[in-house]
Amino acid sequence: MEPFEKAASAIDSLFSRSSLPAGVSRVLPEAAGAAFWPAGFILSGINAGIKPQRKDLMLLLSDAPASAASVFTTNRCSAAPVELSKIHLAATSGRMRAVVCNSGNANAATGARGMQDAARMADDTADAFGLEPEEVLVASTGVIGQLLPTEKIAAAMPALRDAAGPQQWRDAAEAIMTTDTFPKFFAVDVALSGGTARIAGIAKGSGMICPDMATMLAFLCTDADFEPALLQEHLSAANAVSFNAITVDGDTSTNDMAAILASGRGPAVAKGSDDSRLFGEALRAVMTMLAQLIVVDGEGATKFVEIRIEGAANDDEAQMAAMTVANSPLVKTAIHGEDANWGRIIAAVGRSGASFVQEELAVWFDALPILKPGLDASFSEEEAKKVISKDAYAITVSLGGGPGIATVWTCDLSKRYIEINGSYRS
Amino acid sequence: MEPFEKAASAIDSLFSRSSLPAGVSRVLPEAAGAAFWPAGFILSGINAGIKPQRKDLMLLLSDAPASAASVFTTNRCSAAPVELSKIHLAATSGRMRAVVCNSGNANAATGARGMQDAARMADDTADAFGLEPEEVLVASTGVIGQLLPTEKIAAAMPALRDAAGPQQWRDAAEAIMTTDTFPKFFAVDVALSGGTARIAGIAKGSGMICPDMATMLAFLCTDADFEPALLQEHLSAANAVSFNAITVDGDTSTNDMAAILASGRGPAVAKGSDDSRLFGEALRAVMTMLAQLIVVDGEGATKFVEIRIEGAANDDEAQMAAMTVANSPLVKTAIHGEDANWGRIIAAVGRSGASFVQEELAVWFDALPILKPGLDASFSEEEAKKVISKDAYAITVSLGGGPGIATVWTCDLSKRYIEINGSYRS
Repeated sequence: MEPFEKAASAIDSLFSRSSLPAGVSRVLPEAAGAAFWPAGFILSGINAGIKPQRKDLMLLLSDAPASAASVFTTNRCSAAPVELSKIHLAATSGRMRAVVCNSGNANAATGARGMQDAARMADDTADAFGLEPEEVLVASTGVIGQLLPTEKIAAAMPALRDAAGPQQWRDAAEAIMTTDTFPKFFAVDVALSGGTARIAGIAKGSGMICPDMATMLAFLCTDADFEPALLQEHLSAANAVSFNAITVDGDTSTNDMAAILASGRGPAVAKGSDDSRLFGEALRAVMTMLAQLIVVDGEGATKFVEIRIEGAANDDEAQMAAMTVANSPLVKTAIHGEDANWGRIIAAVGRSGASFVQEELAVWFDALPILKPGLDASFSEEEAKKVISKDAYAITVSLGGGPGIATVWTCDLSKRYIEINGSYRS
Repeated sequence: MEPFEKAASAIDSLFSRSSLPAGVSRVLPEAAGAAFWPAGFILSGINAGIKPQRKDLMLLLSDAPASAASVFTTNRCSAAPVELSKIHLAATSGRMRAVVCNSGNANAATGARGMQDAARMADDTADAFGLEPEEVLVASTGVIGQLLPTEKIAAAMPALRDAAGPQQWRDAAEAIMTTDTFPKFFAVDVALSGGTARIAGIAKGSGMICPDMATMLAFLCTDADFEPALLQEHLSAANAVSFNAITVDGDTSTNDMAAILASGRGPAVAKGSDDSRLFGEALRAVMTMLAQLIVVDGEGATKFVEIRIEGAANDDEAQMAAMTVANSPLVKTAIHGEDANWGRIIAAVGRSGASFVQEELAVWFDALPILKPGLDASFSEEEAKKVISKDAYAITVSLGGGPGIATVWTCDLSKRYIEINGSYRS
């Protein structure tokens, strides 16, 4: 299957498992005369020679200053582009014109020289497109610890400009890929009181699903009209239940970054309004889809599994339990081997730090009870096999009668993962 | 290679990388007329039919009440034998006669019935050997969530008794194995002021090295004379830097347990004495060797890697950093692929929670500098390859100028690990 077909198929498959909030509708790339990306932006994706052949340089440009918000990795070895982008966002009070991103080199662990190189990338972008350097967000993904080939990037600016267009999101999505096997994109329309707003995004992840780090990048655009502060609130809230609910979470890699630009061409969204609530739900739907696509495309992944925890003392404990199950190599290898090994699931819950009474635990595979309270595991292996032989299913664990819940998404751990990561650098 | 040859070879190899404290000498199983196990104990290991053919039932018996100490898993899903053993230790104030252990079934997540079954195992052992049930420590390892075949264990007691002898430690070490490919054992003599004391132990682990859980079991004996409280202090202290310094750490599985019995046939050890300090060092040497053997025999492991952190703000931060590096699937796959991917190492340190300044980081493979302060990674790939193509080496990371240090041991992550764990239960 071609990468774009693979992406479309993955989106359809995930879409069939979820539903959009009322007032929110999916935008199909094929529909509406190929218009997919929100108004007010152009995009570009080309090969700048950082990688041998594939696209490796992306531009996202707003035709006027756009409200901007971003979330960044909390890794202490955060990369130069992350640090520079923070500085730029602060300098403009969240009014940006562009995002420039390269793949093939993370510009991480490169010290003062790395900061100069990231600044050079912003300068060259600003020069090429007539912007101020601080109006440019910079992102990088790839190998850690190698100097950025800034000359190649500078030399590619004319080509990047020539290739830009309002619907070049496919090129853009391809240019940020590393070990991803397909580009990731999704868009919705949301009916606000002042008209329809569009939210679209591209993302890359793959890298490694769980529990370490993948450079997870997501770039989102909307034509809605926002104050930067409210946009930031929405981005942070949606991030907590989307990119931070997959085990490539935003706080672990050196280069993770999710950013959104709002062009203001569409309806205005005011703090505290119904529109604001609805926009938040729509943004969450877009980011959740992108996050789930990252899991589906996890390195070596053959299964997509939703881990739901309920009945925890509180949401934080539920999240701890969910992440511990989702990150457990023993659980992930059992998922891979289609083994109904519920003992590993409750053992992971047991070491997660969440509180519970063993006899109150319950486990389901989709709707099939596997463990009932009282440690009753009298399930049918045959019925269980029917569920866990599927490509996608849910594991639900109830810890008891508490109000805490959490949902995270993970994949299995396969031999292919070892192959990919045993020789990534070489 | 036969399992015992494999064990002896692994011990020799690890032994060549370390040195014993002054006054402590290694006991070779072949030496001294085959005497290896400390005086005052007999051991036994047989097949009770829990597993198809291999040995699955172990007994360790003291010919008089012995001082006893134990450390247990902190997993909230701790197994019935763990809970029962805690009760028995409390009931006797740490004066025990026996340890009985089966492999092939963990008696975990088995509820009230599991507690009855563990008690039955203690009762049957007591009956067969003329003990009080509360003088028996019970341990189990194997699949979680299946009822213990107590009838088989009861029926095997006469055979267990017939097979017992003072030097049957090979049988005992074999009977506690699960996916281990070789039995684990080590012994030292330590010259105390009142004479020579011997410390010997057997262990099983394999299961899973990192970061989840293996049932890690270790049973140690000494002929030294101890108060139970001081013995417990020594066991806990040595455990922190041995079994808790490998990533099959004692606080994660449902069944983990390390216990020591002191027969009192040899020299007495008083609290605060030089003898006590020396005994502690000797016990640490035995437990470290057993822990390292578990790593060497990790599922699918092909590399043994020591992770040393120095220059941390304190030992706790050093331990966090060391464990994060040792548990990182990206680091472990790079180790497997013999890829000098130092970026993954410092990225793991970066998300560990330890504090440092990026520019002060330094990394060595054995004695070869890979990253020098100032993010200078001008090492020779060829020289690096020489180190990382070895079966065993050390990765050292300096976080700066702080006093905190930690050492942990880990292995690589290979395809074989996925094979073993994809179908463990079936």
